[in-house]
Amino acid sequence: MPRYKLVLEYDGAPFRGWQRQSNGPSVQASLEAAVAAFCGEQVQVVAAGRTDAGVHARGQVAHLDLAREVSVETLRNALNHHLKPQPVVVLEASAVDADFHARFGAQMRHYRYRIVNRRAPLALDRGRAWLVPARLDAEMMHEAGQRLVGRHDFTSFRSALCQASSPVKTLSQLSVVRDGNEIELWTRARSFLHHQVRNMVGTLKLVGEGRWPVERIDAVLAARDRAAAGPTAPACGLCLMQVDY
Amino acid sequence: MPRYKLVLEYDGAPFRGWQRQSNGPSVQASLEAAVAAFCGEQVQVVAAGRTDAGVHARGQVAHLDLAREVSVETLRNALNHHLKPQPVVVLEASAVDADFHARFGAQMRHYRYRIVNRRAPLALDRGRAWLVPARLDAEMMHEAGQRLVGRHDFTSFRSALCQASSPVKTLSQLSVVRDGNEIELWTRARSFLHHQVRNMVGTLKLVGEGRWPVERIDAVLAARDRAAAGPTAPACGLCLMQVDY
Repeated sequence: MPRYKLVLEYDGAPFRGWQRQSNGPSVQASLEAAVAAFCGEQVQVVAAGRTDAGVHARGQVAHLDLAREVSVETLRNALNHHLKPQPVVVLEASAVDADFHARFGAQMRHYRYRIVNRRAPLALDRGRAWLVPARLDAEMMHEAGQRLVGRHDFTSFRSALCQASSPVKTLSQLSVVRDGNEIELWTRARSFLHHQVRNMVGTLKLVGEGRWPVERIDAVLAARDRAAAGPTAPACGLCLMQVDY
Repeated sequence: MPRYKLVLEYDGAPFRGWQRQSNGPSVQASLEAAVAAFCGEQVQVVAAGRTDAGVHARGQVAHLDLAREVSVETLRNALNHHLKPQPVVVLEASAVDADFHARFGAQMRHYRYRIVNRRAPLALDRGRAWLVPARLDAEMMHEAGQRLVGRHDFTSFRSALCQASSPVKTLSQLSVVRDGNEIELWTRARSFLHHQVRNMVGTLKLVGEGRWPVERIDAVLAARDRAAAGPTAPACGLCLMQVDY
């Protein structure tokens, strides 16, 4: 059976997350329904990152198998046609080898987290960023973030629901950059624990507010206790930007 | 009466435009209702740019007079409270002299027009950009745009509804820059004719597609005929970014 790789963009707001759920809409179910509408096949679409409810994507990667070969332009256009009006689109479709696996083959996942740091509520960025009214020191957040880069036991940043076999992960990048009132946090790793990025953001925000010193990050990591880190940042600021293979 | 200057952000999608209309919601009416809810006064809010239906703003400027002095923090917070859940927010409020006029005092208006240049439909940028599937040459668009910079008779780029006394305007900047699949067009002038930016974008798109040569811009200007220019680009790509005084 021919295997296809899809690169996807979606607005996470109306979904319960990537994964098919019994209690609400999911990106996966929307895609699988679009495939069925296109060719009548009941397929399973496998994604690189099982994004949570409300988390967006500009570069999610998924794969699926079809019984018959189709042109990649036809596949992309047909899925986009059947996905309408849902805010999920196939940016690119390509034919891949049978051993390509969107989840297990991913070498690096890139996430961006957007904060708008101002007093006024959001109008144009509503649902696309975390509004933080207190002034944040982005340089301090960046400095604190460097203490998370590298191979660590990230138990303190792990959701209780996390299914990963080990809490030890290698964080390859964590950069915090301010541009006017907007703060972007970019992070990448081969893989992340459940809620790891949002828990890191919620923790670095405390440093940015001046409530926690930079050095406290070391103690948070060492504690290996979720209660030692800051709260989980809201889903709407997070976006899966790219997956490398 | 004390006069206040407001800097505003709004999502233009749900509005018939800035100006109060009898047949639908407007940004002006929303703000005036918020002022009335705050202090009971029936005021007129005057804006720098009377943006059309669907056009966004990240730096619209307006002024209003109140019978009594209020702190600018109170004014901003109270208006934002009463504007909810509409996507209009007051970014800043400040006290200004009685001779400050948001519209007549504006020295420069800055607009950005966003194009997403790809085949796939929009998910995250739906209603925030113009989707153009055909590959555009942004450098050619920029080059063509330089022929519009300066003092010209812009009759060819003027809507039939335009109320300006003269079609002669001085365009101070028109820059077209590509970043991946996104093309941003930045333009500024002391003032614009009605639909001028959208008509310039719709014309430059024809150059970007290779359908019109760069030199044709000179003929379009010289024609002083709306029929000589390209179609009007959609409102959703346009955003009023800044107004200088």
